[in-house]
Amino acid sequence: MHHESHEWYMNRCFELALQGSGMVSPNPMVGSVIVHNGEIVGEGYHERFGGPHAEVHAIASVGNAEVLQNSTLYVNLEPCSHFGKTPPCADLILAKRIPRVVIGCRDPHEKVAGKGIERLTAAGVQVTEGVLMPEALKLNEAFIKSCTVGLPFVTLKLAQTLDGKIATAGGASRWITGEESRTQVHRLRCNCDAVVVGEATVQADDSELTVRHCAGRNPLRVLLDRRLSLFADARIFSTEAATLVFTTRASSCSVKAEQLRKRGVEVIGVDEDATGLDLKRILQELHRRGIISLLVEGGSRLSASFLGAALVDKLLVFIAPRLFGGDGLSAFAPLGVELPDQAVQLRFQPPVFFGRDLLLEAYVVS
Amino acid sequence: MHHESHEWYMNRCFELALQGSGMVSPNPMVGSVIVHNGEIVGEGYHERFGGPHAEVHAIASVGNAEVLQNSTLYVNLEPCSHFGKTPPCADLILAKRIPRVVIGCRDPHEKVAGKGIERLTAAGVQVTEGVLMPEALKLNEAFIKSCTVGLPFVTLKLAQTLDGKIATAGGASRWITGEESRTQVHRLRCNCDAVVVGEATVQADDSELTVRHCAGRNPLRVLLDRRLSLFADARIFSTEAATLVFTTRASSCSVKAEQLRKRGVEVIGVDEDATGLDLKRILQELHRRGIISLLVEGGSRLSASFLGAALVDKLLVFIAPRLFGGDGLSAFAPLGVELPDQAVQLRFQPPVFFGRDLLLEAYVVS
Repeated sequence: MHHESHEWYMNRCFELALQGSGMVSPNPMVGSVIVHNGEIVGEGYHERFGGPHAEVHAIASVGNAEVLQNSTLYVNLEPCSHFGKTPPCADLILAKRIPRVVIGCRDPHEKVAGKGIERLTAAGVQVTEGVLMPEALKLNEAFIKSCTVGLPFVTLKLAQTLDGKIATAGGASRWITGEESRTQVHRLRCNCDAVVVGEATVQADDSELTVRHCAGRNPLRVLLDRRLSLFADARIFSTEAATLVFTTRASSCSVKAEQLRKRGVEVIGVDEDATGLDLKRILQELHRRGIISLLVEGGSRLSASFLGAALVDKLLVFIAPRLFGGDGLSAFAPLGVELPDQAVQLRFQPPVFFGRDLLLEAYVVS
Repeated sequence: MHHESHEWYMNRCFELALQGSGMVSPNPMVGSVIVHNGEIVGEGYHERFGGPHAEVHAIASVGNAEVLQNSTLYVNLEPCSHFGKTPPCADLILAKRIPRVVIGCRDPHEKVAGKGIERLTAAGVQVTEGVLMPEALKLNEAFIKSCTVGLPFVTLKLAQTLDGKIATAGGASRWITGEESRTQVHRLRCNCDAVVVGEATVQADDSELTVRHCAGRNPLRVLLDRRLSLFADARIFSTEAATLVFTTRASSCSVKAEQLRKRGVEVIGVDEDATGLDLKRILQELHRRGIISLLVEGGSRLSASFLGAALVDKLLVFIAPRLFGGDGLSAFAPLGVELPDQAVQLRFQPPVFFGRDLLLEAYVVS
């Protein structure tokens, strides 16, 4: 089949890149295709952290290496120009004499940041940048935020009724959404580096926060618990996945902290203020550990704290076709909004159905 | 242009039918096209209450009447077989010797209900029924409910934040949604026979509930006010549109009731119970007056009362890309839901954007 638009090949790069989801962090997801006379003759993607880059796989997959000299390489992220865990992809492209390169977006990593494109251009390669750039930036939004801001990309996940409730007046919340949505939450989890919950939510649900309804690795489980009030046999401390507890400096020196440490749970003390533990400090610590994406899984107070501290990048809201009424538990604790213009402002993406539920992605507008 | 699918012509009937929206109630919206050799040679729709039916206009619009004898007539609702305000359309079709008729859905009106189809079939016309039937039923859902249940079709309209709030903690609600949504509310109003609000909402907003941001007739304004506590100069009593007030039997005999009547406002007393005025009785009275569609415009208590009495057919929820937080005013007063399975169950339709807001249509699943 013969295709001709840059966008079509770039979309194929995105598809390939996504196959590395959950496997390559803190590296970006990258896919690459090689096109010769309108035909895709090679494909590859970044398969696992530390492994060869997408361009390497794509180039290696071309049966007849001679056609490379008259081909176009498509890649969703600027080829690297530095020696990291692997040699620079820009050099490989030059060595193979690939004459044309089409790029989705630049790599903001301080060691690349345009240098890959410069090297290619200087050597006479025809470079086209910015093809499907918004989509390319979105694909690696976590990687890009991590590189540029130095904090993990924070996604707040909710399962609520149409009227914004996450539990009934009596506190019942199982289940609000349907099976398809709940499976999708497990997919989200295995594509995030870490999930975080407040102590009250674990107290109420005894969630394990592992990936069960789909194939994939478990994220790091992060628990915020000022008083270390959870029993050591809570499922969040199960040995299937690692757990990291943030608490107050005082609690981090307690007997309970030692008990948890003996069970292999890491306990870290941080400062607190009137609204709770210092969330920014916690995000910095997670960044230091290579966490580029964090999923906030509730409850209403933790979600409100993250929003109040302006640390949320986007919301993923599963909306169930149900109403609980005004005495149900609201999705968020009070946010201090007195006038409509003081509201947390969002930008909706087109919603999609999961079974009978809607999933609405909403970026926080800063 | 030459088209061949029944669905394509039926969709054209829907488009035509909708041109009568707001003009034909309590009659149904009907459009009709006449197709000869794959070409549309005639079109028409039911333009105003009491006027000629769609089929009459469509047949009259055909330039060369001879082609009718080898044409197909498409119509979204079964042709009538009785003398109402106009002669039976089935007879006209037979008189013009139109050999084929394609119908969206049957007319549930007791005087038609299959008799139109029977008459055509008995005379040798080839009748195809049920083309795009779900869409045809939806187009005239108000008319069909009115005929079959004897009550108006009740739509509950809301403008809320993503977290289900219709005002901030301080009671501020102007504006939650954007201009496009607010204009759409005016379109909804002029396509409904009546709008209803509770006294508290009028007290808070002094809404006029007329159609201003688009062309169209004003719906009947219905106010539920047990104590007749509103001042007679409230904008809901403006003379631009008719207002009907339902109150208790006692209040309907009060001096205040007489004052309102002198201003041309009709005041009717109905029974009340612990939850408020008898809503079913109110709907029956509106039905008696030829109201087939009613838009409930709030507030949270009236909406909850309609839901609690199982009198709501669907919700139209404008969701603004904002969060007010847990101390905002919930869209609905308590609904008595203790367990998730006791929730009001809905069925979502695909949402659409109005500006930055989403409009979500949700049918109540009974």
